[in-house]
Amino acid sequence: MTEAAPLPLDHPLASTAEAWFTQLRDRLCAAFESNEDALASGPHADLPAGRFTYTSWKRPEGGGGTMGVMRGRVFEKVGVNISTVHGEFSPEFRSHIPGADEDPRFMATGVSLVAHPRSPRVPTAHMNTRFIVTRKAWFGGGGDITPMNVTAPESLEDAAFFHAAFQRACDAHDPTYYPRFKQWCDEYFYLPHRKETRGLGGIFYDWLGDRTPGHGIEADFAFTKDVGLAFLDAYPAIVAKRMHEAWTPEERQHQLLRRGRYAEFNLLHDRGTVFGLKTGGNVEAILMSLPPEAAW
Amino acid sequence: MTEAAPLPLDHPLASTAEAWFTQLRDRLCAAFESNEDALASGPHADLPAGRFTYTSWKRPEGGGGTMGVMRGRVFEKVGVNISTVHGEFSPEFRSHIPGADEDPRFMATGVSLVAHPRSPRVPTAHMNTRFIVTRKAWFGGGGDITPMNVTAPESLEDAAFFHAAFQRACDAHDPTYYPRFKQWCDEYFYLPHRKETRGLGGIFYDWLGDRTPGHGIEADFAFTKDVGLAFLDAYPAIVAKRMHEAWTPEERQHQLLRRGRYAEFNLLHDRGTVFGLKTGGNVEAILMSLPPEAAW
Repeated sequence: MTEAAPLPLDHPLASTAEAWFTQLRDRLCAAFESNEDALASGPHADLPAGRFTYTSWKRPEGGGGTMGVMRGRVFEKVGVNISTVHGEFSPEFRSHIPGADEDPRFMATGVSLVAHPRSPRVPTAHMNTRFIVTRKAWFGGGGDITPMNVTAPESLEDAAFFHAAFQRACDAHDPTYYPRFKQWCDEYFYLPHRKETRGLGGIFYDWLGDRTPGHGIEADFAFTKDVGLAFLDAYPAIVAKRMHEAWTPEERQHQLLRRGRYAEFNLLHDRGTVFGLKTGGNVEAILMSLPPEAAW
Repeated sequence: MTEAAPLPLDHPLASTAEAWFTQLRDRLCAAFESNEDALASGPHADLPAGRFTYTSWKRPEGGGGTMGVMRGRVFEKVGVNISTVHGEFSPEFRSHIPGADEDPRFMATGVSLVAHPRSPRVPTAHMNTRFIVTRKAWFGGGGDITPMNVTAPESLEDAAFFHAAFQRACDAHDPTYYPRFKQWCDEYFYLPHRKETRGLGGIFYDWLGDRTPGHGIEADFAFTKDVGLAFLDAYPAIVAKRMHEAWTPEERQHQLLRRGRYAEFNLLHDRGTVFGLKTGGNVEAILMSLPPEAAW
């Protein structure tokens, strides 16, 4: 970015990106509600199909968001949040954020979701895409899948399908993206004290700004849209495929233990969680990623 | 401490303190097993009385410990750990630890417990006492109580009984201890992002070394013993008093949410947890404090 870069709130892509994240939220929530409607058999088919409830919140420093939560019969808990906030980074954060050392003002807009299905046969999944503006501007995001039984053939099949969708999205933009962002995901979603990955990975990327010669940040935006659409294509399809399978009490107990690890990751390591809590974000929205039930 | 202070492993109180923590562990576990035996009615009285199982572990850098866990009919999960470890503090910790800036070697011995009862009418409780030696030497510890319904008259009554036991132990040594250590506990067991305390408090103290003129560190050791005995007197008695009460599914669900907060505190803020995980401690022992089941 040059010295003449627009101020965070005036970035020409800010409102377009926000509108996209809102539209993606609508499509994701509709897909998850379709999963709820389609459940025809299995342990919880007698429950009513779930629907999202939405709660909006304002941030005292500027901006706000809408938290969408559904506690249904397929999804024990799924949260889809959108937010657009602005303000100034505190001194402790400035040196870690590109462009914030010269000017602490920022704008951030994005969508994030975590889905915790009832069935231990349906993988948990996470997706987040975002656009951040300081004196620089960049996109970031990704998604990862966490089957409960990481060595089962079905889990490997689901993970391969999930990765293939992201790979297609990546390859359409840059052949180096998928291998780089897959590795970044594996490194990020790692619990060092357990010496284990959170699940079977996906992609993770950040600080993607003006990376495509001749196309500029619009190309990064197009890539970020495709990442969201790849998740929308892949994950609800995996849910639909697995959600009718029956499961054992042992599989449920194992799921609760795996969810304990998920909570450990989010509270000990997740950058978004720690960042959000330390900067006075909306606590309910930040911690919506935590599992509905977990065990240790 | 003077320049001639003994090296960590040679401190004259080290083995005496370790023997005390082991003896206290034995008495605590016996008291919890007595609670299990005494359950005569109520939702889980048909289950067998629980017994502790013990697992010893070694730390590659030196020392080790024994983890005691019981998953019974009164206690859904109670862990009582003892450990005696030695080694060198990593550079990042040296400046935060008294006496470690001049010489990174340390010895630490202690006992810690967290009890998660099945009944939402029985409070959760935590206790830890420890002796640390660097070029300085000090005792630390405390205990706190977390009733599930913090405003119920029964909870306030249990908390008053719990505090009274600690106050007697404190007052016998120094009239300033109880008010100071009660406040320290309130400040420590506070979840800033939730703007709520973990429960109804207790006492917390640290860096207690040679504080009693004319008595030296032996007086601090005697106080630390009395803190452990106060917990032993108070908490199993509260369990015995409340464990026969029936409870509703709504109380159970509320208990699971409160346990979620407990997990948040331990993973986001607890010094022992973060310290242990960052210094390569025994993961299972460190995370034994996490609830058997929790909800968000």
